Amino acid sequence: MRPVSQPHYHLTLGISPLSSLLMSEDERFGLDRSVRLLGPLPLDSGASLAPVEYAYETYGELNAERSNAILVCHALTGDQYVASTHPLTGKPGWWERMVGPGKPVDTDRHFVICANVLGSCLGSSGPATVNPATEQPWAMDFPVITIADMVRAQAMLLDHLGIERLHAVIGGSMGGMQAVSWAALYPERVASAVIIASAARHSAQNIAFHEVGRQAIMADPRWRGGAYYADDDPPSSGLAVARMAAHITYLSEAGLTEKFGRRLQDRPDGKKGAKTFGFDADFQVESYLRHQGISFVDRFDANSYLYITRAMDYFDLAEAHGGVLANAFKGSKTRFCLISFDTDWLYPTSESRAIVHALNAAGAEVSFMELSSPFGHDSFLLENPEMNRIVDGFLKAGEGR
Amino acid sequence: MRPVSQPHYHLTLGISPLSSLLMSEDERFGLDRSVRLLGPLPLDSGASLAPVEYAYETYGELNAERSNAILVCHALTGDQYVASTHPLTGKPGWWERMVGPGKPVDTDRHFVICANVLGSCLGSSGPATVNPATEQPWAMDFPVITIADMVRAQAMLLDHLGIERLHAVIGGSMGGMQAVSWAALYPERVASAVIIASAARHSAQNIAFHEVGRQAIMADPRWRGGAYYADDDPPSSGLAVARMAAHITYLSEAGLTEKFGRRLQDRPDGKKGAKTFGFDADFQVESYLRHQGISFVDRFDANSYLYITRAMDYFDLAEAHGGVLANAFKGSKTRFCLISFDTDWLYPTSESRAIVHALNAAGAEVSFMELSSPFGHDSFLLENPEMNRIVDGFLKAGEGR
Repeated sequence: MRPVSQPHYHLTLGISPLSSLLMSEDERFGLDRSVRLLGPLPLDSGASLAPVEYAYETYGELNAERSNAILVCHALTGDQYVASTHPLTGKPGWWERMVGPGKPVDTDRHFVICANVLGSCLGSSGPATVNPATEQPWAMDFPVITIADMVRAQAMLLDHLGIERLHAVIGGSMGGMQAVSWAALYPERVASAVIIASAARHSAQNIAFHEVGRQAIMADPRWRGGAYYADDDPPSSGLAVARMAAHITYLSEAGLTEKFGRRLQDRPDGKKGAKTFGFDADFQVESYLRHQGISFVDRFDANSYLYITRAMDYFDLAEAHGGVLANAFKGSKTRFCLISFDTDWLYPTSESRAIVHALNAAGAEVSFMELSSPFGHDSFLLENPEMNRIVDGFLKAGEGR
Repeated sequence: MRPVSQPHYHLTLGISPLSSLLMSEDERFGLDRSVRLLGPLPLDSGASLAPVEYAYETYGELNAERSNAILVCHALTGDQYVASTHPLTGKPGWWERMVGPGKPVDTDRHFVICANVLGSCLGSSGPATVNPATEQPWAMDFPVITIADMVRAQAMLLDHLGIERLHAVIGGSMGGMQAVSWAALYPERVASAVIIASAARHSAQNIAFHEVGRQAIMADPRWRGGAYYADDDPPSSGLAVARMAAHITYLSEAGLTEKFGRRLQDRPDGKKGAKTFGFDADFQVESYLRHQGISFVDRFDANSYLYITRAMDYFDLAEAHGGVLANAFKGSKTRFCLISFDTDWLYPTSESRAIVHALNAAGAEVSFMELSSPFGHDSFLLENPEMNRIVDGFLKAGEGR
């Protein structure tokens, strides 16, 4: 780990990295920030990446002791707009229920950082950004990355922001994979870790669903080996199919039944729902899924989808520790909070429990709760007062230390 | 229902339909049969189909009383080759564990019929067969069909074969949907019905997975609105993706973990399994799924996949009976046997139980067993001595009547 006092980055904003300006005037902080860090970032594959571009947002004020920072890690198709309007969709931040003034991740009390993950497409380095060697988009020449690489890149960003130690790291789904990896890779930099609806490794079924999505993208002739950026004609059909398949895994059977059942779609001509005996979206669930697919391609890059799903499939925290998950947490002083949802079949409770067992075996401090929700994996993104209470209580208890 | 004594068919084999020849010399019976029935077959959509082409096989001997016939109904991608070698793949019949000499569906005792389902692509009428009006393949002009249409078409075939009443109808998955529909549509013609790993309606999640498959096919530019037969360039990529997505639903999470886990694929160069940090099939489960997709397209037609999945999605036996499933079985004298598998998440035990409840409410005779198997929905196709014992006992008990 590089010490904070030896900055290894280049600031696009042109100000001193450890500025003595007031925090509110520090141009590193605020909405819609970006920075190009010089790197190089060594990767698990053996390759390295330089520079490392980062798009991120911060919310709230960093206190004088720099002790109130919380890093929010986003999921596969998430982004840095955790609590501000998404510039492409115009939708509210994806976790405004959790992050904001008076929320569990309280921007009145905490300094919150959310960065677009390495490999993604909202401004951070990924296949759509420029390869300095060719001055063309990286496309499939972008190096394959891992969850640990994402976390190491985030550590570089924290160095740039002048944050040595996090009050907490928090994330759901792939965000939880990053949070648990933070605690394993940088135990001294993480006081508390909140891991929601996540897992310490990708199962065969998880890999299988991702592989379907990748094959759908690669089967689209417009994918062209990933070199589709020049003429703005991306493999939207394949990406939409990938999204549809994945989306089913985010919902529970019971949730789908509650939300849609076998209800038929009202017709555009105003006719009440009826079977058309054709291949239109007769059922509401078909229409919903098609919409999920179509709207996704407007905000996400197909190659990024390939890279990030690959990183998730490669994820197996035990593997990097001799096959024993507890070894990842040996001697850890980090406090852990795990939450799972009873209808989540993507990362079921058993996966969270495996992490809890490992933490117990390692003697780490951990609290764990399985919550009841009909909405499957997506529950962590939805209104859930119990989840909010748990996170709020856990973070507050950590502040007294 | 048309009486058997008034044949409404035309025999391609050119023999008298109610031949007085010895059974073994009756050209309607045996392997690899086909017939063109004149029809018309009225369809649920309001359209009708004529002629109705049928490819089918029979095994064993029809007894003098014509009372030992068992109709085997196949699943979505199944075929008539239930107990004989598949002509395209060279593989053994798909249910030789269940059907054959000394097997529960015992070809020494029973006369077994298995017909390629309406809408499929192994010789029965479907989008790949010729539309007499245009002398071109039907493609997407083929009428949309339902499970009930499939069953009515099978009843026409039984008329042709001179079989008034079935000793039993048996099927798994979509075959079970046909079996339960047989009992509802033609109670007088079915002495016993065996319904395995099936459901009386398609759930929102079932529909969702099928819709992903259909969108994968239709997104393939080679699909061309279904008109791809002329130049032998079908939408194989889309169909392969559809198959991969569906295949995951046929297996359980536990089964996938047991079979593949996170094990890596040995490399073609003989190198032991290792991550390539690329997009090859590193994991065995990826390689397996890709194989499932690629081999499927050699034996199945993409348009048939669209039509049959649509028929399944439309299936809701209660809907046709005022929303009350029990009404489908009112006064039924048919004996029922239902079997489900504890790890089947495609048609979980709860779906079988709903049928059992309805049968009980209707006062029908029913036995039901949930079997334990790690292999998910696919269990009904695999070696399962307990399933075989149950079916064997159920069929034998029915012979005493």
